[in-house]
Amino acid sequence: MLTSQKHALVVSAHSADFVWRAGGAIASHVKQGWKVKVICLSYGERGESAKLWRQTNMTLEKVKSVRQNEAERAANILGSDIEFWDIGDYPLQINNDILFRLVDLYRTLQPEFVLSHSLHDPYNFDHPRAMQLAQEARIIAQAEGHHPGEQVLGAPPIYAFEPHQPEQCQWEPNTFLDISDVWDTKLEAIKCMEGQEHLWEYYTRVAQQRGVQAKRNIGITSKQDIRFAEGYMKLTPSVVSSL
Amino acid sequence: MLTSQKHALVVSAHSADFVWRAGGAIASHVKQGWKVKVICLSYGERGESAKLWRQTNMTLEKVKSVRQNEAERAANILGSDIEFWDIGDYPLQINNDILFRLVDLYRTLQPEFVLSHSLHDPYNFDHPRAMQLAQEARIIAQAEGHHPGEQVLGAPPIYAFEPHQPEQCQWEPNTFLDISDVWDTKLEAIKCMEGQEHLWEYYTRVAQQRGVQAKRNIGITSKQDIRFAEGYMKLTPSVVSSL
Amino acid sequence: MLTSQKHALVVSAHSADFVWRAGGAIASHVKQGWKVKVICLSYGERGESAKLWRQTNMTLEKVKSVRQNEAERAANILGSDIEFWDIGDYPLQINNDILFRLVDLYRTLQPEFVLSHSLHDPYNFDHPRAMQLAQEARIIAQAEGHHPGEQVLGAPPIYAFEPHQPEQCQWEPNTFLDISDVWDTKLEAIKCMEGQEHLWEYYTRVAQQRGVQAKRNIGITSKQDIRFAEGYMKLTPSVVSSL
Amino acid sequence: MLTSQKHALVVSAHSADFVWRAGGAIASHVKQGWKVKVICLSYGERGESAKLWRQTNMTLEKVKSVRQNEAERAANILGSDIEFWDIGDYPLQINNDILFRLVDLYRTLQPEFVLSHSLHDPYNFDHPRAMQLAQEARIIAQAEGHHPGEQVLGAPPIYAFEPHQPEQCQWEPNTFLDISDVWDTKLEAIKCMEGQEHLWEYYTRVAQQRGVQAKRNIGITSKQDIRFAEGYMKLTPSVVSSL
Amino acid sequence: MLTSQKHALVVSAHSADFVWRAGGAIASHVKQGWKVKVICLSYGERGESAKLWRQTNMTLEKVKSVRQNEAERAANILGSDIEFWDIGDYPLQINNDILFRLVDLYRTLQPEFVLSHSLHDPYNFDHPRAMQLAQEARIIAQAEGHHPGEQVLGAPPIYAFEPHQPEQCQWEPNTFLDISDVWDTKLEAIKCMEGQEHLWEYYTRVAQQRGVQAKRNIGITSKQDIRFAEGYMKLTPSVVSSL
Amino acid sequence: MLTSQKHALVVSAHSADFVWRAGGAIASHVKQGWKVKVICLSYGERGESAKLWRQTNMTLEKVKSVRQNEAERAANILGSDIEFWDIGDYPLQINNDILFRLVDLYRTLQPEFVLSHSLHDPYNFDHPRAMQLAQEARIIAQAEGHHPGEQVLGAPPIYAFEPHQPEQCQWEPNTFLDISDVWDTKLEAIKCMEGQEHLWEYYTRVAQQRGVQAKRNIGITSKQDIRFAEGYMKLTPSVVSSL
Repeated sequence: MLTSQKHALVVSAHSADFVWRAGGAIASHVKQGWKVKVICLSYGERGESAKLWRQTNMTLEKVKSVRQNEAERAANILGSDIEFWDIGDYPLQINNDILFRLVDLYRTLQPEFVLSHSLHDPYNFDHPRAMQLAQEARIIAQAEGHHPGEQVLGAPPIYAFEPHQPEQCQWEPNTFLDISDVWDTKLEAIKCMEGQEHLWEYYTRVAQQRGVQAKRNIGITSKQDIRFAEGYMKLTPSVVSSL
Repeated sequence: MLTSQKHALVVSAHSADFVWRAGGAIASHVKQGWKVKVICLSYGERGESAKLWRQTNMTLEKVKSVRQNEAERAANILGSDIEFWDIGDYPLQINNDILFRLVDLYRTLQPEFVLSHSLHDPYNFDHPRAMQLAQEARIIAQAEGHHPGEQVLGAPPIYAFEPHQPEQCQWEPNTFLDISDVWDTKLEAIKCMEGQEHLWEYYTRVAQQRGVQAKRNIGITSKQDIRFAEGYMKLTPSVVSSL
Repeated sequence: MLTSQKHALVVSAHSADFVWRAGGAIASHVKQGWKVKVICLSYGERGESAKLWRQTNMTLEKVKSVRQNEAERAANILGSDIEFWDIGDYPLQINNDILFRLVDLYRTLQPEFVLSHSLHDPYNFDHPRAMQLAQEARIIAQAEGHHPGEQVLGAPPIYAFEPHQPEQCQWEPNTFLDISDVWDTKLEAIKCMEGQEHLWEYYTRVAQQRGVQAKRNIGITSKQDIRFAEGYMKLTPSVVSSL
Repeated sequence: MLTSQKHALVVSAHSADFVWRAGGAIASHVKQGWKVKVICLSYGERGESAKLWRQTNMTLEKVKSVRQNEAERAANILGSDIEFWDIGDYPLQINNDILFRLVDLYRTLQPEFVLSHSLHDPYNFDHPRAMQLAQEARIIAQAEGHHPGEQVLGAPPIYAFEPHQPEQCQWEPNTFLDISDVWDTKLEAIKCMEGQEHLWEYYTRVAQQRGVQAKRNIGITSKQDIRFAEGYMKLTPSVVSSL
Repeated sequence: MLTSQKHALVVSAHSADFVWRAGGAIASHVKQGWKVKVICLSYGERGESAKLWRQTNMTLEKVKSVRQNEAERAANILGSDIEFWDIGDYPLQINNDILFRLVDLYRTLQPEFVLSHSLHDPYNFDHPRAMQLAQEARIIAQAEGHHPGEQVLGAPPIYAFEPHQPEQCQWEPNTFLDISDVWDTKLEAIKCMEGQEHLWEYYTRVAQQRGVQAKRNIGITSKQDIRFAEGYMKLTPSVVSSL
Repeated sequence: MLTSQKHALVVSAHSADFVWRAGGAIASHVKQGWKVKVICLSYGERGESAKLWRQTNMTLEKVKSVRQNEAERAANILGSDIEFWDIGDYPLQINNDILFRLVDLYRTLQPEFVLSHSLHDPYNFDHPRAMQLAQEARIIAQAEGHHPGEQVLGAPPIYAFEPHQPEQCQWEPNTFLDISDVWDTKLEAIKCMEGQEHLWEYYTRVAQQRGVQAKRNIGITSKQDIRFAEGYMKLTPSVVSSL
């Protein structure tokens, strides 16, 4: 513990989710000196690569390769590490091996916080599954009887990042992260997602709307200017020394 | 703005609520250099002074006087200012004058945060009314058209402190405040409530249980020791620069 | 306490509600030796007397008189006492005087349980108001500082009886009362409501459906036959010596 | 009933709400031959006219006058009638007279549908009050005993239009209205709100986001193009002949 | 688009569910020229065939055969196609093969709407599982990367039909379908379920109650007569051109 | 059925849960002449045996052995039978065999009521899984087609006992069981859990707090003294003959 290097973990169901939904958080914490690790459980190769599939002679392997390349470039721009677990999408194929692999990662990484999907999403069954995986792996990583002798995990807070249609997902932002000073970086990362150009403007507007809302929630009298923000639903209680 | 004196506001339906439910927050912030103002909307003279009424020759004025005296001593121990608005209890008699009086106070005080009751309480209709008053006055205090020219209010977060039977009140603590180092002070303040001795141990145990839970929520690996805590339900979103 | 006469209280927003929604409970408890008191806050003279208003030369006083007569006959059949408070309907005109009048009644009657409307009803704003009145009066009746010296109230359970469109009212029956052996009495009381003939069959079917559901909830192996039931949503926790 | 002129009613707490939140619905239905009536309960003179109050020598009457003028121009552009009830804002001053006045309007207008605010809004207590007023007046307008002899109201559906921070308001859009072909009109109406320029872009983006979501909810295979939409939360059940 | 043949899909956990819960919708749409396909995931052979099991020498195969016969006759009366997938009940044995089989069916059928069970049912775990299957298969059928080259699915609305004890299942009807003119057909289909005679009257009364409620929701002034209805909980937002 | 021996069933995810959460109910019903059977699905060997794992040379078998011994002693003190199913924890490994094994037990035991965990617990995924198992097995045990010819199950009520952090688990006690007269027994059983000494005082305080709350819910006027109680959330409706 000579160094105080802080780590964060992002569990992304498909290869682009971490960019739209948490790109600002990643870039901001990297800028603040954190190390951020992104896990892409799948490439979204079947469910979220429509444009690629409209090309001729497309194959599953080609789709995966393109999506991996895009995600790697985005992660690079954001400054995070990235791993591809390639477990298959629509539906995500989660089993005990995947669960324990994520437990191992928690143990190794010892993240200060974790980001994943909303707990509900009637438009996307993979998303809540990814979050449940992230939650359960976190709990097992805290258990001394799992791989006894290893350093157990503390209690990193878990945040649900913003789904595509938030109100339909019972998702309510109780935390706004100011990403104004890393917005350019996030937008650059977004633009790596060449197959999903229709979403670039959508998530730009999301960031603007959350920025306005964040500003409103610090009050008109505050001097802090917020132009872009990301909304998060913190699922774990805060423990504080002042309110 | 030469000084950075920070203020907090506590809106208490009856004269003892601020002690059981927020005494630790008050003492802790006072210890950290804050000024805390407590408003007792009523003395709880009808609804929460059972023991006094069992004495012979008791009158409403005597009850109020005793409760005021207890509350003043408790506030003194905790280090807060206290005002008694004496609007009547069971039910609280809230009207526009009371609403605007609280607006004025928000404007004058410019609190950094506000504490009041839970939004629901099937055992106590005064409690949610006090919170609604605190919420609505806060909104009006932000409006430039109310007493134009006055300094408007920013957006201080609002927290609901713990009701007597939390699960029945749809109250869920999303914030735990460590009050270990001011527990003795809180307990001393609690003991000013001579008419409600049966609650001393109850709220001591509440603080212990919340302490255990707070400790669990920072994780077993944390070195921070928490023996006593208060639970709060933060009603307003947080705006942050790191997660 | 020589006698163990048990009392129950029914708070009905309009003059017929107690029949459709609680007639079985009233008749059953009367049959079991209880005394049941019904309070009709209004006659439903404006909002629930459509058929009468279609008659020529109808006046508000005539409507009230007819509704009172019907309700008295129904109460007589069910075996309950009945009082008409005539506070006006659509909307109910509730104020502190009405609140304290109900408090007084709680104190005098000392009911073992209380029945009133659902907490929500988007089709009828008077109904939830009646229940809120019943809840708040109960709390004040427990307070020693209200009319000090009077016998305070215990903690009678409160049940919400069935609204007209239960799912729209967030009403869920957690208690089924078997009314099979008093069904004939309830039906006879229902038929006093001459102006609302369209509801006779509706509430007969409600009783049949709740009967089937009650039977299902005691299990196929039970020998108890239930042909008619009333559903209730108990709002207060049970305290028991065995589960 | 010679003509089949259809009417709609919009109940707006403050003078600009109907523009941001329902301007598209108004323009669209006017274009389809409907008559739309907007009621502005207040001018938002105290709570939502910040920019005006920053001008020197501003008075309450001047603020009201400016806001009325803006709203009239916007209504004119959208093609609706508008009435200003001037009942005062922050808080709205609702009483039985206002309630019955709205009942009268329902009776006269016989609207096919009604639009008002969300049922909850922790940022704005006037908004839910306006909706409750709209709901309760609708119920009373259906009652034959209110002003007997008048034509009673049918059962027009009620929709809650979009609040400023939807997730915080428990508001979920279950209905998307395509406003693509009247967007220019709505934008022109929006620009009448000179004192709230910061909201022009905000509500333009809202319309774009709801447009994308609406498109997603008709499916990628649909040929219908939707660029702008308004979200509504329908509060009343639909009765249909085909699904 | 030479033909405008419209299709609907019903996903029924057990072989009789589609009759009690959606028989009216099926008959009505068939009468309106639609084609309706019913999938019975199981026969309800273990969990919902009590009467058959009380016969001597009964076997699983005989039960299935009887249930299939009943369901075929009912489907025939209603005018729908029917398929039996025989995946086993109590519990339903759902796996990826079943999921993809339903995806294929969505693709082939291209239904305009889908009916299945409520999302929650503490009395029946198979029912929510069937609905989840229907929801997830619908999402996968929309994905271009699943069986690339096939015609993907649009966004057919999904409705939850009525469970046996609606309030216990968090099921709220937001849509009432008038089935008055096909009631006789539905009743005839119901009577095919010879093993569940006790439910004939139950679901007749359900249809009558929903009819009364539907009538109430179009208003007393409407000339439309509704004697029988089915309630549905629409789970997907509507996209409309007028409100 | 000569005797009226009553049985109860407790489904415990880990080997100590039944003690902390239902020890009072067990001891009380045993004292009242019931037979109570506890099923420990796992030993909590990985997830809830931290202290043991800190000993040197600890193995999984040793942990299980110690936990079994503790639980047997506790069950013995409480007076219940106990079975260890050893299915593995963190996560519980539930499959159809386990499900049907529990069905068999329901059939053999014919319990009058069932106790298990809360339906939600973000801190412990095994707990809700155990409850779901208990619920689904109960339903299958009622089905005549499961092992035809066996005596089917009635409809024993199901209660969720108290989780560690109740508000976070959407658990609300609607039933308080007075355990004052068996508290000493429960405490003795608690003290068998030598590896979890930190929880002894925690659950002592839980019992005291629930005791105070139970007392409040019978009212100040009741002569019944309650010093210790357990809270339960009854999930199934009550069917009663008087309210």
